[in-house]
Amino acid sequence: MHRTRIRIVEDALDANDTIARANRDDFDRAGVVVVNFMSAPGAGKTTLLERVVGELDGVRVGVLEGDVQGSLDAERLASFHVPVVQLNTGEGFGGECHLDANMVRTAIPALPLDDLDLLVVENVGNLVCPAEFRIGEDHRVMVSSVTEGEDKPLKYPLMFRACDLVLVNKIDLLPHLEFDLQKFLHNLDAVHPGVERRLVSARTGEGIGEWREWLLRAAAREPAIA
Amino acid sequence: MHRTRIRIVEDALDANDTIARANRDDFDRAGVVVVNFMSAPGAGKTTLLERVVGELDGVRVGVLEGDVQGSLDAERLASFHVPVVQLNTGEGFGGECHLDANMVRTAIPALPLDDLDLLVVENVGNLVCPAEFRIGEDHRVMVSSVTEGEDKPLKYPLMFRACDLVLVNKIDLLPHLEFDLQKFLHNLDAVHPGVERRLVSARTGEGIGEWREWLLRAAAREPAIA
Repeated sequence: MHRTRIRIVEDALDANDTIARANRDDFDRAGVVVVNFMSAPGAGKTTLLERVVGELDGVRVGVLEGDVQGSLDAERLASFHVPVVQLNTGEGFGGECHLDANMVRTAIPALPLDDLDLLVVENVGNLVCPAEFRIGEDHRVMVSSVTEGEDKPLKYPLMFRACDLVLVNKIDLLPHLEFDLQKFLHNLDAVHPGVERRLVSARTGEGIGEWREWLLRAAAREPAIA
Repeated sequence: MHRTRIRIVEDALDANDTIARANRDDFDRAGVVVVNFMSAPGAGKTTLLERVVGELDGVRVGVLEGDVQGSLDAERLASFHVPVVQLNTGEGFGGECHLDANMVRTAIPALPLDDLDLLVVENVGNLVCPAEFRIGEDHRVMVSSVTEGEDKPLKYPLMFRACDLVLVNKIDLLPHLEFDLQKFLHNLDAVHPGVERRLVSARTGEGIGEWREWLLRAAAREPAIA
């Protein structure tokens, strides 16, 4: 008697995870550490990169710039003479509000991977979907600016949970806001206990040295200091 | 001879538009004007509603509060003794980053439509996808806060184009920012020439009278003053 045997594949990967693993393999072969850099629109991702990309001594950095359309941020970063590739979700990807592994995969041939130690992928400004799609990264870093309010970790917990590092930006504005920093940090610890965080101001330079140090350690595959 | 006749349906509606029309019919039957209220996370939607919902003389207002999860904003607004219904995209809708017509349709039975003149639907904080889904609204209003930078209309043009009114919020912070208001307004006019705009500060109350006036006129179905 024949019996049809059905093999149950446990923990099957979805298409995105499958492609993320392929990206991961390519990055590993080239020895590139990849940071998926995320935030709400206008939180300061590009400015925080401008502050450090020219000063990562000995680390060859490249940027993959994700936007729905346009290349404003890519142009800003290219002026620092680092390789920048623009990935637009509006052309060919239906105007998606996030990057996914497949979009990043289409950009890999345009990236000089063998000449890089560190690749920062600046995701589309959005606190929801970017956290749902792995792209083959080593680290996920997010920026939360103090002008956005203390409640953001509670309203977008997946994003805050998904990260290895939270940059709390625009702290130069604290004297002019009713933002309660302790309350924000309490909310952050409620959704992601003990996650690394740095208080920074892209504008005044406060905390930028620590952000640079974090990137240097990540590029060297050294454990971060909490 | 038989010929198969294929009828071409021009301008076929997608499922979202079909449901948006059904919502629209329900709102019209009840005589409710609906505002779809959108912005990036932390731009100040809820605070801008808190400033006006208690002072819309003669207009019975309700709020449909959209969030991925939680009910923080709904609780804030309920304290003004207006009907508030919470719609979470995280439960049953896969954690969507926007409201669509079907989600709003599921909330309609919970809304006291016959007792309302104006319904404000506070969308999920996101500058991309909320602009792509009509929900059966009369108006689309967005908030862009000056802390987000002058480039936002160029980076998220669909959102800025989709709106009848742009509230430029947090103008009390202008003295502390390098934000160039003229440049922002130039970018806004580049993507949506002449769109109505109001400069407001939810914190100091500046411009809030005009925002209230806009809502009163919308509720009365009077044309707006540019």
